[in-house]
Amino acid sequence: MKYENMADKPIGIFDSGVGGLTVLKEIHARLPAESTIYMGDTARVPYGIRSAETVIKYSLENSSFLVEKGIKLLIIACNTASAVSLNIIRNTFKIPVLGVIEPGAKAAAQATKNGLVGVIGTEATIKSGAYGRTIRSLDPRIKVIERSCPLFVPLVEEGWLDNEVVEMVAQRYLTEMKLYNIDTLVLGCTHYPLLKKVIKKVMGDDVVLIDSAIEKAKNVAKILTTSGLLKTLETPVHRKYYVTDCPDRFQEIGKRFMLDSLEDITKIEIASLEEKAMALKNACGCGGV
Amino acid sequence: MKYENMADKPIGIFDSGVGGLTVLKEIHARLPAESTIYMGDTARVPYGIRSAETVIKYSLENSSFLVEKGIKLLIIACNTASAVSLNIIRNTFKIPVLGVIEPGAKAAAQATKNGLVGVIGTEATIKSGAYGRTIRSLDPRIKVIERSCPLFVPLVEEGWLDNEVVEMVAQRYLTEMKLYNIDTLVLGCTHYPLLKKVIKKVMGDDVVLIDSAIEKAKNVAKILTTSGLLKTLETPVHRKYYVTDCPDRFQEIGKRFMLDSLEDITKIEIASLEEKAMALKNACGCGGV
Repeated sequence: MKYENMADKPIGIFDSGVGGLTVLKEIHARLPAESTIYMGDTARVPYGIRSAETVIKYSLENSSFLVEKGIKLLIIACNTASAVSLNIIRNTFKIPVLGVIEPGAKAAAQATKNGLVGVIGTEATIKSGAYGRTIRSLDPRIKVIERSCPLFVPLVEEGWLDNEVVEMVAQRYLTEMKLYNIDTLVLGCTHYPLLKKVIKKVMGDDVVLIDSAIEKAKNVAKILTTSGLLKTLETPVHRKYYVTDCPDRFQEIGKRFMLDSLEDITKIEIASLEEKAMALKNACGCGGV
Repeated sequence: MKYENMADKPIGIFDSGVGGLTVLKEIHARLPAESTIYMGDTARVPYGIRSAETVIKYSLENSSFLVEKGIKLLIIACNTASAVSLNIIRNTFKIPVLGVIEPGAKAAAQATKNGLVGVIGTEATIKSGAYGRTIRSLDPRIKVIERSCPLFVPLVEEGWLDNEVVEMVAQRYLTEMKLYNIDTLVLGCTHYPLLKKVIKKVMGDDVVLIDSAIEKAKNVAKILTTSGLLKTLETPVHRKYYVTDCPDRFQEIGKRFMLDSLEDITKIEIASLEEKAMALKNACGCGGV
């Protein structure tokens, strides 16, 4: 598609699967005039159990695909991919690239009163230490307690959002956070906002939950405004989805995240993703991982 | 490695991740003289949530890798991969190829007295209907009740094998099986034997559990004996592991399956797997999916 001007171009968002739809939903709510292209790597989901090296490879392939579609801004909606590949992707492409770690970390640093912040996420996100590092760089006095919660993603994908099983799992995972008496908890995975009710119940009303999807959407609105790239409602709005596997499953589980049905889903081949990334690597000598 | 004769060659086994180690463990126990090469596709695990098309592509790539290592027999340890790709792999390679569905189905058909058999597995295995089809082909009078249990794999990988969470999840998944009054239950996923204790507790002592790993190992022993391919203990035994990602994680979780530490683990690149499969496709015009 050809665009008249830069502001009309779509925002590109990728995630390992459906999780990033929590970010997309907030962007649609705050920026209804923007066109968006969402790409879910459902043939290789989940990223949270993989090595940094593998997540970087997959992230570069997804980014190349979206950049080639002519996006004006790239959002890495996946916390794991943001934690390990943001800098490499920023150095590889010319358009602005935003992760989900920074806005979440900033909101947490601003919210805490007792200087005790908890962060929950996938194994890979927690292992990367990215949230702790970013929060401490904003305020070195803050103590950050990090914990991976591997069963939260499968529970959300199963559609179990607030039954007794989820509550028991949350109790087990969050005991340590409660013992540390944290006053702020970062939901460091795009699936976790769907478990807010249970997490709130376990942690108590006094603990502030930081939803990285909401923080991200606020951040995007700010950047587009200051850079003059905000689209108006006068030009048509397109909302397009690409997945690497199982479009039907994506549509079904995606409804839980968007609270709305998803139209215009196209399946793309992993092999074509790899070719695009390779072509880019050969052309500019960048992203050489 | 060069082999003096066919019987000295190793048995090749692949799985989407660590799950197939339940099969390998039984093979080591029954056939201690055999050399084995195990390949776990940990960069693309789990297969159970993917489309048949994607699982077939991954399975062909894994098989090509193992066949090139000079194996005498190929075992598809993953139930999902067996369910959707066994025939294509059999038609692609010249060595004997064994899946896990047939021996499990056969054991179930022999075990049931009331003709009511339950099968549990991943979403993709259950969706394929492979167990039901195979069991009914052996005895059309048998009624088969199939149910996917998506949280069982993540629970095993988290190391939660018999706590109250697992029991509650098992209660929810198996209610229907109990209502149907089945007398035989096939554990149609290589992870599930680790949950035997809980499944037994929920289903009651009267229900026979069919462990596809044990049935598979019996089957391999029989085939090697009748074909004269049984190796003796006189030649050295090699036990080698390959993974596509996270060798450390494989070693750690693998211990739960093997009850022993895993030595000699090598990481291989997905790109090299794809190249081998492509070379094979070009050379023989087979596996063209």
